[in-house]
Amino acid sequence: MSSVAQAATSLSRLSARARRTSEPQISWLLKKPLENPNMISLAAGLVDQQSLPAQAIQKLVAMLFSNEDAAKRALQYGTTEGEATLRHTLAHRLEDQGLPAPIDPENIVITNGSQQLLFLATDVLVDPGDIVLVEDPTYFVYMGTLDSVGARTIGIPTDDEGIIPDALEETLRSLEASGELPRVKILYVMTYFQNPKGSSHTWKRREQIYEIVERFSSDEHYIYILEDAAYYELKFEGEDVPFLKTLDSANERVLLAMTFSKAFAPGFRLGYGYLPSELTPHILNQKGNHDFGSGNLAQNLICHALQTGIFDEHAAMLRQRYRAKRDLMLDVIRRHFPPEVKYLEPKGGLYVWVTMPEGISTSPGSRFFEEALAREVLYVPGCYCYAQEEGRRKPDNQMRLCYAYIQEDPMVEGLKRLADACAAALT
Amino acid sequence: MSSVAQAATSLSRLSARARRTSEPQISWLLKKPLENPNMISLAAGLVDQQSLPAQAIQKLVAMLFSNEDAAKRALQYGTTEGEATLRHTLAHRLEDQGLPAPIDPENIVITNGSQQLLFLATDVLVDPGDIVLVEDPTYFVYMGTLDSVGARTIGIPTDDEGIIPDALEETLRSLEASGELPRVKILYVMTYFQNPKGSSHTWKRREQIYEIVERFSSDEHYIYILEDAAYYELKFEGEDVPFLKTLDSANERVLLAMTFSKAFAPGFRLGYGYLPSELTPHILNQKGNHDFGSGNLAQNLICHALQTGIFDEHAAMLRQRYRAKRDLMLDVIRRHFPPEVKYLEPKGGLYVWVTMPEGISTSPGSRFFEEALAREVLYVPGCYCYAQEEGRRKPDNQMRLCYAYIQEDPMVEGLKRLADACAAALT
Repeated sequence: MSSVAQAATSLSRLSARARRTSEPQISWLLKKPLENPNMISLAAGLVDQQSLPAQAIQKLVAMLFSNEDAAKRALQYGTTEGEATLRHTLAHRLEDQGLPAPIDPENIVITNGSQQLLFLATDVLVDPGDIVLVEDPTYFVYMGTLDSVGARTIGIPTDDEGIIPDALEETLRSLEASGELPRVKILYVMTYFQNPKGSSHTWKRREQIYEIVERFSSDEHYIYILEDAAYYELKFEGEDVPFLKTLDSANERVLLAMTFSKAFAPGFRLGYGYLPSELTPHILNQKGNHDFGSGNLAQNLICHALQTGIFDEHAAMLRQRYRAKRDLMLDVIRRHFPPEVKYLEPKGGLYVWVTMPEGISTSPGSRFFEEALAREVLYVPGCYCYAQEEGRRKPDNQMRLCYAYIQEDPMVEGLKRLADACAAALT
Repeated sequence: MSSVAQAATSLSRLSARARRTSEPQISWLLKKPLENPNMISLAAGLVDQQSLPAQAIQKLVAMLFSNEDAAKRALQYGTTEGEATLRHTLAHRLEDQGLPAPIDPENIVITNGSQQLLFLATDVLVDPGDIVLVEDPTYFVYMGTLDSVGARTIGIPTDDEGIIPDALEETLRSLEASGELPRVKILYVMTYFQNPKGSSHTWKRREQIYEIVERFSSDEHYIYILEDAAYYELKFEGEDVPFLKTLDSANERVLLAMTFSKAFAPGFRLGYGYLPSELTPHILNQKGNHDFGSGNLAQNLICHALQTGIFDEHAAMLRQRYRAKRDLMLDVIRRHFPPEVKYLEPKGGLYVWVTMPEGISTSPGSRFFEEALAREVLYVPGCYCYAQEEGRRKPDNQMRLCYAYIQEDPMVEGLKRLADACAAALT
């Protein structure tokens, strides 16, 4: 059989979902540095490796294993919802962070990173052909998940203060006019130091968005808000803005997704959700089929990290570290990039969002991309971060730079190479 | 709104998949001991807690963290497919266990327990209305997964040597006659010390099953075999039987699912699959959306456990421990149960499968079940382990007893109570 015929045969063996699921668009890009060690990647979204809490975790292990019974409980199967003490600790923590008390730990579910919560929430709410609204631009991994479940993804324009309320309202009104409003199931929004833009939603915007979604929602056509607060703990400066979830005092509309990966260590592969009480059992039933519970040992260690203050100490140190790396990145951009190039100054998180002059595409295959590749430097092309919709042109002159994983010297070198590529593309 | 109306509203907000997904039938049963601490559970499928490798894991942590660079790599994000060294180690291990060499580590995927592999495999192959063949009886958790994806589950009768070849052939022939053969996507089979029966497939049966599936399969209508070998390492006695997967020399038909939970520690929540090369990318794409990789720290610790021999030492110890517990359970059954009650003597694994005389139902609500409950002892009713199919009556006079989690004294006490309940139900 020819390999083309074989590939076709193979596809016919797969479920509709599997046929809709492709390799992440960005995979080939992230693999490039493995092929060429001289390649400097400002694309990789990993965390700073030097500052990972190796010593702290040894302490946590010693603490847990000093009690043999507790250690053995941590090595046993856990429950689908996650370790009870951890969930209680998180409930109190969220109350301290301003969410309406009392929080019922029953509505907190421990997941494999926040990603699993994004997946479960989507799988439980979205049928093929349903609509999910996202920010323009948004987190590209989640758009892969939406493709896989067969959702139609619509991007809502944003500015530096978050989703533009008028744009959200206009989209919903036009969907109402076309009779498609009942198919809108989720508004996905990253409220803090968004990936890729690095900007946050102001409090006013959170209120506006919540009000609009509530207004276009009814008992029959319910729109949930999926608030992804992955970068919440990584605030360098500026005022504290309450979670959008704060507005959901009856705990019925907003799913809050959090992670331990950014502010502590991705190696635990743990995150959690605080869920509307009506959805919790359905998310749990689904997780029961996926894996009936996340790693119990990892959960017990994280629980100790939270209770002893080790987690918060580490997060505080990380904020310093990332702030310094951000400062360095902005400084080099300022000194070396042509003035026509614009960028946002993030007050937290891991990313700087850069906009080239109109007409200078950053997409794979563009002159700029090739100039960068020739100079052995990588970025995330902005086009990957936009929901691609028929009949709507999205910007293609942007890029995401990440200062988290890269160390200082290669960061400076990589940015200089990118500045060279900019200059070349602009001539 | 009334609570009934509210529940209906709530359901209308869910995806079709979520509406198909229910709480595991057995949940209420497994929660009973929490409500009544005097309840003795021979139902719980947890592992022996006393023997969990707390000391060994401290050693593994010390080993990993003695190299700061290695420790920090383990605390970073991993890859979707899992830690490369672990996958290489497993490839060699599977070759040593008799699978055709060379095994490409690219086809080994690390998952959250073997459960996640069962889920991913099913999700990638099965559309609603497709057919999955399982053993009668089979692992009840997997049947929940099948309901959730909308599969039609058909049980194939088994005897003490595994699936009965004639029964498999007859089922496939009848599906062929009705035009439904193309909808058969998977045969799910537990080859070693099956849950719930405790029996294994003989080598001859493996060959027969493989041949039949191959014969009814074509390029267009492909039937995969999902070989769940979760209890492979827990063999107490008898000859070694090669994996069914051994027959799949081209690596195209059999997905082998393995776990570290039974022979080492469930708290890591890790398992793995050895997959047909054609399926690997599709399973990985799906896992990318679920969680883009299992816990990296846990994977690194397991890798050290395998490489140092700590894993195998522990598994050897566990075999002794479980054999002794099995011997005790069989001994008490022999001495206390009425002679009309039959049971299988497992040569490995964690379960004893008991058959009451015809007409004595063990199902929830039955006289026997109530007599047991009144005596504060629990078992898994056999009915939960059968695919319920319209027009086919399945046995309802069986039960699964687990000797893994329960300690010796309560085990003896629980069995005596169950024997009392038997006697009461038989009078």
